[in-house]
Amino acid sequence: MRYEELTIEGRNAVIEAYRSGKPIDKIFIQDGCQDGPIMTIKREAKKHDTLVKYVSRDRLDQMSETGKHQGVIAYAAAYEYADVDDILKLAEEKGEPPFVFLLDNIEDPHNLGAIIRTANLAGAHGVIIPKNRAVGLTATVARTSAGALNYTPVAKVTNLAKTIEELKEKGLWFVCADMDGTQMYKLDLKGPIGLVIGNEGEGVGRLVKEKCDFVASIPMKGDIDSLNASVAAGVLAYEIVRQRIQG
Amino acid sequence: MRYEELTIEGRNAVIEAYRSGKPIDKIFIQDGCQDGPIMTIKREAKKHDTLVKYVSRDRLDQMSETGKHQGVIAYAAAYEYADVDDILKLAEEKGEPPFVFLLDNIEDPHNLGAIIRTANLAGAHGVIIPKNRAVGLTATVARTSAGALNYTPVAKVTNLAKTIEELKEKGLWFVCADMDGTQMYKLDLKGPIGLVIGNEGEGVGRLVKEKCDFVASIPMKGDIDSLNASVAAGVLAYEIVRQRIQG
Repeated sequence: MRYEELTIEGRNAVIEAYRSGKPIDKIFIQDGCQDGPIMTIKREAKKHDTLVKYVSRDRLDQMSETGKHQGVIAYAAAYEYADVDDILKLAEEKGEPPFVFLLDNIEDPHNLGAIIRTANLAGAHGVIIPKNRAVGLTATVARTSAGALNYTPVAKVTNLAKTIEELKEKGLWFVCADMDGTQMYKLDLKGPIGLVIGNEGEGVGRLVKEKCDFVASIPMKGDIDSLNASVAAGVLAYEIVRQRIQG
Repeated sequence: MRYEELTIEGRNAVIEAYRSGKPIDKIFIQDGCQDGPIMTIKREAKKHDTLVKYVSRDRLDQMSETGKHQGVIAYAAAYEYADVDDILKLAEEKGEPPFVFLLDNIEDPHNLGAIIRTANLAGAHGVIIPKNRAVGLTATVARTSAGALNYTPVAKVTNLAKTIEELKEKGLWFVCADMDGTQMYKLDLKGPIGLVIGNEGEGVGRLVKEKCDFVASIPMKGDIDSLNASVAAGVLAYEIVRQRIQG
């Protein structure tokens, strides 16, 4: 339901969406469907790195709003994705050291929207998300971002660890949030920086964490495990803002 | 639906809930109902400061899960409320200057849950919410708090401005978040403190704001208006944590 404005149902509609260049985040295909149009859709999905899920006909019937899914339902992104280079260019235009958020598999659209909102207000130049598993730019994300999606570029990359390596060559440092890190107030977070925020349940993945230059921890005094992902992103982002202001 | 575990339907069930001392957050009564049991419920609602809404029979039919609402549906709190004194006692037991969150009409249960979670982890001793309009301790709030509701006391008060006055007499200072305030890094936020967070749309109410000793602003570099309420609460709370740690 939360994707309702952006659901594309039926074989021709989905093929047409791919041909027109519409960014598709996820496709649901009925188990066992093997005919020509479905094979075309699978090829397009592979070409565009779309996440494909195979589900039962009952499941598709439940998801369908038109009742005419013909074995396939696609979720399109509400917004166009940017390139990583667009983000760096924005920093350059503003004459500021790059400040980028990287989200390692945020799954909740409300969290993604709130984080894009925070990125905008903290003065970050863009947000990078991975192609698989993570939620894309759905209508809920757009709404929760409170308009920030209109200003803050969001890029989708195949491999977050590889993107970090490429950005390191362009002079960025990377800090990720984890409980076993150094207390964030003790780190020097100034200069061109990438802030890596982990998945709601599992935190930052091992491969991504290994690429980071620092691991920062938020001091925790309480009885429970961790902050909400969008709150943690906000607290860390504003420690970076504070260090940039107080120089 | 989000209150489903805690919905009480029907006249006797609602009267019984009041008599057993169950905390009721909100009551929906069918327009025009004037009979004895409904009058009893209205008296109980008044006595316990429950928010009462008058709605059409159609609306009640839609809300009803049992189909037997008999003109009244109540939403009970999932958790027991604490007293303001319980919060101060907790600070005393820990030998810490009191650190209290006051929420001026947070309406979204996800925000309330995330803020209680933040309060716990930032080492605050409790959260104070107003009786009217604001969302109470529903099942959604409990779930979003990620267990924090089991540790962090939440008190419900009739008049937030009056509670601030009473707490000032006990030595607390109050800071509220607003865009026209002093940049938070420039304020001294150490010592016994109450952090006032405003409503999602309207911010902190005028009467409450006038009672505050400081107005703190979070630096905003972006193109949009404001952070999500739970993110703003986290950013401000952690500025207080930083000042306490770096003393």
